Amino acid sequence: MTDTSLDPRSQPATVDAMGGAAPIFRGVRRALAARGFASLTEFRLASGRRADVLAMDEAGTVVIVEVKSGVPDFRSDQKWHEYRDWCDAFYFAVDDGFPTELIPGDCGLMVADAYGAEVLREPPASRLAPARRRTLILRAALMGAARLHRIEDPLFSQSQPTV
Amino acid sequence: MTDTSLDPRSQPATVDAMGGAAPIFRGVRRALAARGFASLTEFRLASGRRADVLAMDEAGTVVIVEVKSGVPDFRSDQKWHEYRDWCDAFYFAVDDGFPTELIPGDCGLMVADAYGAEVLREPPASRLAPARRRTLILRAALMGAARLHRIEDPLFSQSQPTV
Repeated sequence: MTDTSLDPRSQPATVDAMGGAAPIFRGVRRALAARGFASLTEFRLASGRRADVLAMDEAGTVVIVEVKSGVPDFRSDQKWHEYRDWCDAFYFAVDDGFPTELIPGDCGLMVADAYGAEVLREPPASRLAPARRRTLILRAALMGAARLHRIEDPLFSQSQPTV
Repeated sequence: MTDTSLDPRSQPATVDAMGGAAPIFRGVRRALAARGFASLTEFRLASGRRADVLAMDEAGTVVIVEVKSGVPDFRSDQKWHEYRDWCDAFYFAVDDGFPTELIPGDCGLMVADAYGAEVLREPPASRLAPARRRTLILRAALMGAARLHRIEDPLFSQSQPTV
Protein backbone atom coordinates (compact mmCIF):
# COMPACT_ATOMS: atom_id res chain seq x y z
CA MET A 1 0.00 0.00 0.00
CA THR A 2 1.51 3.28 -1.05
CA ASP A 3 -0.89 5.39 1.00
CA THR A 4 0.77 5.74 4.37
CA SER A 5 -2.51 6.71 5.99
CA LEU A 6 -3.58 3.08 5.68
CA ASP A 7 -0.33 1.88 7.18
CA PRO A 8 -0.89 0.61 10.71
CA ARG A 9 2.40 2.22 11.72
CA SER A 10 1.13 5.71 10.90
CA GLN A 11 0.30 7.69 14.01
CA PRO A 12 -3.16 8.97 14.75
CA ALA A 13 -3.30 12.32 16.48
CA THR A 14 -2.15 12.28 20.06
CA VAL A 15 -2.82 14.79 22.77
CA ASP A 16 0.79 15.96 22.52
CA ALA A 17 0.61 16.44 18.77
CA MET A 18 -2.61 18.42 19.06
CA GLY A 19 -1.20 20.89 21.56
CA GLY A 20 -3.78 23.42 22.68
CA ALA A 21 -6.39 21.92 20.38
CA ALA A 22 -6.68 18.67 22.36
CA PRO A 23 -9.68 19.77 24.50
CA ILE A 24 -11.49 20.95 21.36
CA PHE A 25 -10.88 17.62 19.64
CA ARG A 26 -12.19 15.77 22.66
CA GLY A 27 -15.31 17.87 23.01
CA VAL A 28 -16.06 17.72 19.30
CA ARG A 29 -15.78 13.93 19.22
CA ARG A 30 -18.05 13.61 22.24
CA ALA A 31 -20.65 15.92 20.70
CA LEU A 32 -20.49 14.02 17.42
CA ALA A 33 -20.92 10.72 19.25
CA ALA A 34 -23.97 12.10 21.04
CA ARG A 35 -25.44 12.86 17.60
CA GLY A 36 -24.75 9.31 16.39
CA PHE A 37 -21.50 10.04 14.56
CA ALA A 38 -18.40 7.88 15.00
CA SER A 39 -15.23 9.87 14.36
CA LEU A 40 -11.62 9.44 13.32
CA THR A 41 -8.92 12.03 13.82
CA GLU A 42 -6.23 13.00 11.29
CA PHE A 43 -7.98 11.44 8.34
CA ARG A 44 -5.97 11.68 5.15
CA LEU A 45 -8.14 12.31 2.11
CA ALA A 46 -7.34 11.02 -1.36
CA SER A 47 -6.37 14.61 -2.20
CA GLY A 48 -3.50 14.35 0.29
CA ARG A 49 -5.09 16.88 2.66
CA ARG A 50 -5.60 15.73 6.21
CA ALA A 51 -8.92 16.41 7.91
CA ASP A 52 -8.74 16.98 11.67
CA VAL A 53 -11.92 14.99 12.32
CA LEU A 54 -13.94 12.88 9.92
CA ALA A 55 -17.20 11.43 11.23
CA MET A 56 -19.91 9.16 9.87
CA ASP A 57 -23.35 8.09 10.98
CA GLU A 58 -25.43 4.99 10.26
CA ALA A 59 -26.93 6.64 7.18
CA GLY A 60 -23.43 7.11 5.75
CA THR A 61 -23.49 10.89 6.20
CA VAL A 62 -19.92 12.21 6.23
CA VAL A 63 -18.94 15.22 8.33
CA ILE A 64 -15.57 16.94 8.47
CA VAL A 65 -14.61 19.19 11.37
CA GLU A 66 -11.56 21.42 11.20
CA VAL A 67 -10.28 22.34 14.65
CA LYS A 68 -8.74 25.77 15.14
CA SER A 69 -6.84 26.34 18.36
CA GLY A 70 -6.74 30.10 17.84
CA VAL A 71 -6.71 32.94 15.34
CA PRO A 72 -3.15 32.33 14.06
CA ASP A 73 -4.05 28.69 13.38
CA PHE A 74 -7.13 29.81 11.48
CA ARG A 75 -5.36 32.52 9.49
CA SER A 76 -2.54 30.19 8.45
CA ASP A 77 -4.98 27.75 6.84
CA GLN A 78 -5.75 28.93 3.32
CA LYS A 79 -7.08 25.62 2.05
CA TRP A 80 -9.96 24.75 4.35
CA HIS A 81 -12.47 25.20 1.50
CA GLU A 82 -11.09 22.06 -0.14
CA TYR A 83 -12.56 19.95 2.66
CA ARG A 84 -16.06 20.81 1.52
CA ASP A 85 -15.59 18.60 -1.53
CA TRP A 86 -15.12 15.58 0.73
CA CYS A 87 -18.11 15.70 3.05
CA ASP A 88 -21.82 16.38 3.36
CA ALA A 89 -21.26 18.95 6.10
CA PHE A 90 -18.19 20.97 7.04
CA TYR A 91 -17.67 22.68 10.39
CA PHE A 92 -15.00 24.72 12.04
CA ALA A 93 -14.60 24.03 15.74
CA VAL A 94 -13.10 26.63 18.06
CA ASP A 95 -13.06 27.34 21.78
CA ASP A 96 -15.16 30.01 23.41
CA GLY A 97 -12.38 32.58 23.30
CA PHE A 98 -12.27 32.57 19.51
CA PRO A 99 -13.75 35.57 17.66
CA THR A 100 -16.39 33.60 15.77
CA GLU A 101 -17.08 36.49 13.38
CA LEU A 102 -13.88 35.44 11.59
CA ILE A 103 -15.47 32.12 10.53
CA PRO A 104 -16.99 32.32 7.03
CA GLY A 105 -20.76 32.42 7.14
CA ASP A 106 -21.14 29.52 4.73
CA CYS A 107 -19.35 27.07 7.05
CA GLY A 108 -20.74 25.19 10.01
CA LEU A 109 -19.51 26.36 13.39
CA MET A 110 -19.07 24.52 16.67
CA VAL A 111 -17.82 25.96 19.93
CA ALA A 112 -16.21 23.28 22.03
CA ASP A 113 -14.58 22.67 25.36
CA ALA A 114 -13.09 19.43 26.66
CA TYR A 115 -16.50 17.98 27.52
CA GLY A 116 -18.66 18.68 24.52
CA ALA A 117 -19.49 21.12 21.80
CA GLU A 118 -22.41 23.27 20.78
CA VAL A 119 -23.32 23.77 17.15
CA LEU A 120 -23.74 27.51 16.68
CA ARG A 121 -24.40 27.26 12.96
CA GLU A 122 -25.26 24.40 10.64
CA PRO A 123 -23.52 24.44 7.27
CA PRO A 124 -25.49 24.71 4.02
CA ALA A 125 -26.89 21.39 2.84
CA SER A 126 -24.72 19.56 0.32
CA ARG A 127 -24.52 15.98 -0.81
CA LEU A 128 -21.54 13.84 -1.72
CA ALA A 129 -21.62 11.91 -4.97
CA PRO A 130 -22.25 8.21 -4.23
CA ALA A 131 -18.88 7.03 -5.53
CA ARG A 132 -16.95 9.50 -3.39
CA ARG A 133 -19.03 8.60 -0.34
CA ARG A 134 -18.25 4.92 -0.84
CA THR A 135 -14.56 5.66 -1.23
CA LEU A 136 -14.44 7.81 1.90
CA ILE A 137 -16.25 5.25 4.00
CA LEU A 138 -14.03 2.42 2.76
CA ARG A 139 -10.94 4.49 3.57
CA ALA A 140 -12.35 5.19 7.02
CA ALA A 141 -13.01 1.49 7.60
CA LEU A 142 -9.48 0.53 6.51
CA MET A 143 -7.86 3.32 8.52
CA GLY A 144 -9.80 2.56 11.69
CA ALA A 145 -9.14 -1.17 11.47
CA ALA A 146 -5.43 -0.64 10.76
CA ARG A 147 -5.08 1.72 13.73
CA LEU A 148 -6.84 -0.74 16.02
CA HIS A 149 -4.63 -3.55 14.76
CA ARG A 150 -1.53 -1.52 15.58
CA ILE A 151 -2.87 -0.91 19.11
CA GLU A 152 -3.97 -4.51 19.63
CA ASP A 153 -0.76 -6.07 18.24
CA PRO A 154 1.92 -3.46 18.92
CA LEU A 155 4.77 -5.79 18.02
CA PHE A 156 3.48 -6.32 14.52
CA SER A 157 5.21 -4.52 11.71
CA GLN A 158 4.08 -4.83 8.12
CA SER A 159 7.72 -5.27 7.20
CA GLN A 160 7.93 -8.54 9.12
CA PRO A 161 7.50 -11.54 6.88
CA THR A 162 4.46 -13.66 7.57
CA VAL A 163 4.28 -17.30 6.56
CA MET B 1 -28.25 3.55 18.47
CA THR B 2 -29.91 0.29 19.30
CA ASP B 3 -27.13 -1.86 17.88
CA THR B 4 -24.75 -2.38 20.76
CA SER B 5 -21.95 -3.34 18.38
CA LEU B 6 -21.71 0.31 17.41
CA ASP B 7 -21.65 1.42 21.01
CA PRO B 8 -18.17 2.59 21.99
CA ARG B 9 -18.65 0.89 25.35
CA SER B 10 -18.92 -2.54 23.74
CA GLN B 11 -15.78 -4.60 24.21
CA PRO B 12 -13.67 -5.79 21.32
CA ALA B 13 -12.02 -9.17 21.77
CA THR B 14 -9.25 -9.23 24.31
CA VAL B 15 -6.53 -11.80 24.72
CA ASP B 16 -8.23 -13.06 27.87
CA ALA B 17 -11.59 -13.43 26.19
CA MET B 18 -10.08 -15.35 23.29
CA GLY B 19 -8.39 -17.91 25.50
CA GLY B 20 -6.38 -20.42 23.51
CA ALA B 21 -7.41 -18.81 20.26
CA ALA B 22 -5.42 -15.62 20.86
CA PRO B 23 -2.29 -16.72 18.94
CA ILE B 24 -4.46 -17.78 15.99
CA PHE B 25 -6.21 -14.41 15.96
CA ARG B 26 -2.88 -12.63 16.00
CA GLY B 27 -1.36 -14.70 13.23
CA VAL B 28 -4.47 -14.42 11.07
CA ARG B 29 -4.58 -10.64 11.38
CA ARG B 30 -0.89 -10.38 10.50
CA ALA B 31 -1.32 -12.61 7.47
CA LEU B 32 -4.35 -10.61 6.35
CA ALA B 33 -2.44 -7.35 6.76
CA ALA B 34 0.39 -8.74 4.64
CA ARG B 35 -2.20 -9.36 1.91
CA GLY B 36 -3.50 -5.80 2.16
CA PHE B 37 -6.50 -6.52 4.39
CA ALA B 38 -7.29 -4.43 7.47
CA SER B 39 -9.17 -6.45 10.06
CA LEU B 40 -11.55 -6.04 12.96
CA THR B 41 -12.22 -8.69 15.59
CA GLU B 42 -15.62 -9.63 17.02
CA PHE B 43 -17.60 -7.96 14.27
CA ARG B 44 -21.34 -8.12 14.84
CA LEU B 45 -23.27 -8.64 11.63
CA ALA B 46 -26.75 -7.26 11.03
CA SER B 47 -27.98 -10.85 11.50
CA GLY B 48 -26.82 -10.70 15.12
CA ARG B 49 -24.06 -13.27 14.54
CA ARG B 50 -20.59 -12.21 15.52
CA ALA B 51 -17.73 -12.89 13.13
CA ASP B 52 -14.36 -13.57 14.76
CA VAL B 53 -12.45 -11.55 12.16
CA LEU B 54 -13.81 -9.34 9.39
CA ALA B 55 -11.28 -7.89 6.97
CA MET B 56 -11.42 -5.54 3.99
CA ASP B 57 -8.99 -4.43 1.31
CA GLU B 58 -8.77 -1.28 -0.80
CA ALA B 59 -11.04 -2.82 -3.43
CA GLY B 60 -13.74 -3.31 -0.81
CA THR B 61 -13.38 -7.10 -0.78
CA VAL B 62 -14.80 -8.48 2.47
CA VAL B 63 -13.31 -11.57 4.12
CA ILE B 64 -14.57 -13.34 7.23
CA VAL B 65 -12.34 -15.69 9.20
CA GLU B 66 -13.76 -17.96 11.87
CA VAL B 67 -11.12 -18.99 14.40
CA LYS B 68 -11.36 -22.47 15.92
CA SER B 69 -9.19 -23.17 18.93
CA GLY B 70 -9.79 -26.92 18.71
CA VAL B 71 -12.15 -29.69 17.68
CA PRO B 72 -14.73 -29.08 20.45
CA ASP B 73 -14.92 -25.41 19.46
CA PHE B 74 -15.45 -26.42 15.84
CA ARG B 75 -18.05 -29.09 16.61
CA SER B 76 -20.07 -26.78 18.84
CA ASP B 77 -20.52 -24.26 16.01
CA GLN B 78 -23.46 -25.34 13.89
CA LYS B 79 -24.02 -21.97 12.24
CA TRP B 80 -20.76 -21.13 10.54
CA HIS B 81 -22.37 -21.46 7.09
CA GLU B 82 -24.37 -18.29 7.79
CA TYR B 83 -21.17 -16.25 7.60
CA ARG B 84 -20.83 -17.01 3.93
CA ASP B 85 -23.77 -14.73 3.18
CA TRP B 86 -21.83 -11.77 4.59
CA CYS B 87 -18.50 -11.90 2.77
CA ASP B 88 -16.76 -12.53 -0.52
CA ALA B 89 -14.53 -15.19 1.02
CA PHE B 90 -14.94 -17.29 4.15
CA TYR B 91 -12.09 -19.10 5.91
CA PHE B 92 -11.69 -21.23 8.97
CA ALA B 93 -8.44 -20.66 10.83
CA VAL B 94 -6.97 -23.35 13.06
CA ASP B 95 -3.58 -24.16 14.56
CA ASP B 96 -1.31 -26.85 13.21
CA GLY B 97 -2.56 -29.46 15.65
CA PHE B 98 -6.09 -29.34 14.26
CA PRO B 99 -7.26 -32.26 12.08
CA THR B 100 -7.91 -30.20 8.97
CA GLU B 101 -9.89 -33.00 7.30
CA LEU B 102 -12.79 -31.94 9.55
CA ILE B 103 -13.05 -28.58 7.76
CA PRO B 104 -15.66 -28.65 4.97
CA GLY B 105 -14.05 -28.69 1.55
CA ASP B 106 -16.06 -25.73 0.32
CA CYS B 107 -14.59 -23.38 2.94
CA GLY B 108 -11.29 -21.56 2.88
CA LEU B 109 -8.69 -22.84 5.32
CA MET B 110 -5.81 -21.10 7.09
CA VAL B 111 -3.36 -22.67 9.48
CA ALA B 112 -2.02 -20.06 11.87
CA ASP B 113 0.41 -19.56 14.70
CA ALA B 114 1.06 -16.39 16.68
CA TYR B 115 3.26 -14.93 13.93
CA GLY B 116 1.33 -15.50 10.74
CA ALA B 117 -0.89 -17.84 8.81
CA GLU B 118 -0.71 -19.93 5.69
CA VAL B 119 -3.68 -20.31 3.39
CA LEU B 120 -4.02 -24.02 2.72
CA ARG B 121 -7.17 -23.65 0.65
CA GLU B 122 -8.89 -20.71 -0.99
CA PRO B 123 -12.67 -20.67 -0.74
CA PRO B 124 -14.85 -20.81 -3.84
CA ALA B 125 -15.34 -17.44 -5.51
CA SER B 126 -18.46 -15.57 -4.47
CA ARG B 127 -19.49 -11.97 -4.66
CA LEU B 128 -21.48 -9.85 -2.23
CA ALA B 129 -24.39 -7.83 -3.55
CA PRO B 130 -23.39 -4.14 -3.74
CA ALA B 131 -25.91 -2.97 -1.13
CA ARG B 132 -24.75 -5.54 1.41
CA ARG B 133 -21.10 -4.70 0.75
CA ARG B 134 -21.80 -1.02 1.36
CA THR B 135 -23.65 -1.81 4.58
CA LEU B 136 -20.86 -4.05 5.88
CA ILE B 137 -18.15 -1.51 5.12
CA LEU B 138 -20.13 1.30 6.74
CA ARG B 139 -20.66 -0.85 9.85
CA ALA B 140 -16.94 -1.60 9.91
CA ALA B 141 -16.09 2.09 9.63
CA LEU B 142 -18.47 2.99 12.46
CA MET B 143 -17.32 0.13 14.67
CA GLY B 144 -13.62 0.84 14.17
CA ALA B 145 -14.03 4.56 14.79
CA ALA B 146 -16.16 3.97 17.90
CA ARG B 147 -13.61 1.53 19.34
CA LEU B 148 -10.77 3.96 18.70
CA HIS B 149 -12.77 6.76 20.32
CA ARG B 150 -13.27 4.63 23.41
CA ILE B 151 -9.51 3.98 23.57
CA GLU B 152 -8.55 7.59 22.87
CA ASP B 153 -11.07 9.11 25.30
CA PRO B 154 -11.55 6.42 27.95
CA LEU B 155 -13.48 8.70 30.29
CA PHE B 156 -16.18 9.35 27.72
CA SER B 157 -19.47 7.58 28.16
CA GLN B 158 -22.32 8.01 25.72
CA SER B 159 -24.59 8.39 28.72
CA GLN B 160 -22.88 11.61 29.73
CA PRO B 161 -24.75 14.64 28.51
CA THR B 162 -22.88 16.85 26.08
CA VAL B 163 -23.74 20.47 25.53
